[in-house]
Amino acid sequence: MQSREVHLVRRPDGMPRPSDFEIREVALSEPADGQVLVKNVYLSIDPATRPRLTRGQELNVVMGGFALGRVVKSRTPNLKEGDIVRGAFGYREAYVTDARYVGRVDIDPKLPLAIYMSVMGGAGFVAYGGLLEIGKMKSGEQVFVSTAAGSVGSLAAQIARLKGCTVIGSTGSDDKVAWLQSLGLDAVINYKKEPIREALDKAAPKGIDVYFDNVGGDHLEAALRKMNSLGRIAVCGMISTYNDQQIGVRNLSLIIYGRINIRGFVTTDFPHLLPQFNEEMTGWLRDGKIKYQETYFDGIDNAPAALIGMLNGENTGKTLVRLG
Amino acid sequence: MQSREVHLVRRPDGMPRPSDFEIREVALSEPADGQVLVKNVYLSIDPATRPRLTRGQELNVVMGGFALGRVVKSRTPNLKEGDIVRGAFGYREAYVTDARYVGRVDIDPKLPLAIYMSVMGGAGFVAYGGLLEIGKMKSGEQVFVSTAAGSVGSLAAQIARLKGCTVIGSTGSDDKVAWLQSLGLDAVINYKKEPIREALDKAAPKGIDVYFDNVGGDHLEAALRKMNSLGRIAVCGMISTYNDQQIGVRNLSLIIYGRINIRGFVTTDFPHLLPQFNEEMTGWLRDGKIKYQETYFDGIDNAPAALIGMLNGENTGKTLVRLG
Repeated sequence: MQSREVHLVRRPDGMPRPSDFEIREVALSEPADGQVLVKNVYLSIDPATRPRLTRGQELNVVMGGFALGRVVKSRTPNLKEGDIVRGAFGYREAYVTDARYVGRVDIDPKLPLAIYMSVMGGAGFVAYGGLLEIGKMKSGEQVFVSTAAGSVGSLAAQIARLKGCTVIGSTGSDDKVAWLQSLGLDAVINYKKEPIREALDKAAPKGIDVYFDNVGGDHLEAALRKMNSLGRIAVCGMISTYNDQQIGVRNLSLIIYGRINIRGFVTTDFPHLLPQFNEEMTGWLRDGKIKYQETYFDGIDNAPAALIGMLNGENTGKTLVRLG
Repeated sequence: MQSREVHLVRRPDGMPRPSDFEIREVALSEPADGQVLVKNVYLSIDPATRPRLTRGQELNVVMGGFALGRVVKSRTPNLKEGDIVRGAFGYREAYVTDARYVGRVDIDPKLPLAIYMSVMGGAGFVAYGGLLEIGKMKSGEQVFVSTAAGSVGSLAAQIARLKGCTVIGSTGSDDKVAWLQSLGLDAVINYKKEPIREALDKAAPKGIDVYFDNVGGDHLEAALRKMNSLGRIAVCGMISTYNDQQIGVRNLSLIIYGRINIRGFVTTDFPHLLPQFNEEMTGWLRDGKIKYQETYFDGIDNAPAALIGMLNGENTGKTLVRLG
């Protein structure tokens, strides 16, 4: 059986270009004992891929990235044909692998499958665990979410609301402000129109108990000034520093008398929350309580364009490549 | 009965001067029901007093500061004559107060009384709780302590060693390096002779699991580069920022993939550890396993000089005023 996959063939300098990638056809072997053959259905396009193009992603091999696929042949008792699995080297149509390298996803047939790559996938789980486990968020607290219109931020903001918190979001365009207001956030800041510090002073009269940080830099400085005693800062990303604009945070000493906790985290930090997340988020989705936006690209040939569009900020919400 | 006390009469601009303070004599009333008369024995001179001289400390009233005193008259069943108590408004020879404003100190008569203002007082407890509760330090870990020759840092460094950790300390003079080496630290950095970043690269080949931070700024940046996964930074102070030299920390994004925890704390954050601290530290002191340095001044008249000497860096170890 043949499959096509995306290889990085040249390390980009700044924004990646289509010529940095090549689509290559490979022949798949038959699955051996303990192996499965998986056909990918959806490929998740994520910001974290960009730094790996500079360092981490090998040249001339299949590119890393999460994909959701269907088992089409199984030679392990743990997986059967038709099972939906998540794998980490996703920029390809199909692959054969040892079963231990994929994770079976327990899907709800009433929900669209693509949702397991966004709301029910890493984006949703990192928002959920970041607030509850890392941020130790409790009902009634004041929560600030930066890049609140992003795929993770918009879920963090909505989860915080559903959990009974007052939610302030920051974003960078009027369209996104309007969308966040339609989600019911208590205050929305357009940080491109007003300095984040002054805006937050106005938007957070009761201070901040939990800051879900995707930005770092000036957003983190502004939040530190507003943190309530024993407040928690859950650091999911620091996009302000990704392009080597290493902006210093100058008021960290505020954490001492405020007894503030700052914790960086990744999605593997709270595996014990997964069953609870699956159940609660499925319920919210069925009840129409979570809204999300997606941008689709079709076919593996368009995976580089999907990635470049996301990095350019041209895509809305979660970016996915449909392979099925 | 008469008592003399120190009042702040002028807010200092930069380093305080003797003329910023006055010694005033006050008449004490007889203790009423529920009150005690306390004669102070030792006054603790602490760095945290300096910012309060600019904001916090009222003018022309007794100055705040911890003191250890002896109850000489009691009209409460909870305290009896001879009891040793700790109070918060310490720049005075004697005072009458409601019993609830002082805390009885359970002393070990085999230890010198002054130790309850240093090793067995706030300095020791903040070092102990900072490492164990905030830093979640475990035996065998790599621990870095900045200002390791200070009254808190030197105790943190020794506690970490006694708990079976590898300990790296930083300090700013060769004399202090020599003293820290005599305490058995595994590596000692003189940050005035070598940039902290390069020095820490050499001194911490196994990285850092717990950083007990008294400095912030460049020390924190250097430590962040060396933190092991799931490392903990317990922030006790950020002396590099106290004089408005707001140096930014530029590499905070390292906490994300490192899943580093940064927590500011104060001595009241772990009251449940107090009995355990008292028992363990008393044992170490009796066994001669903890070393400490003290500088004494005699009489309330010399309290301003004691404070100025400490802020100038002229005193060695813990600064105390003897009043008894």
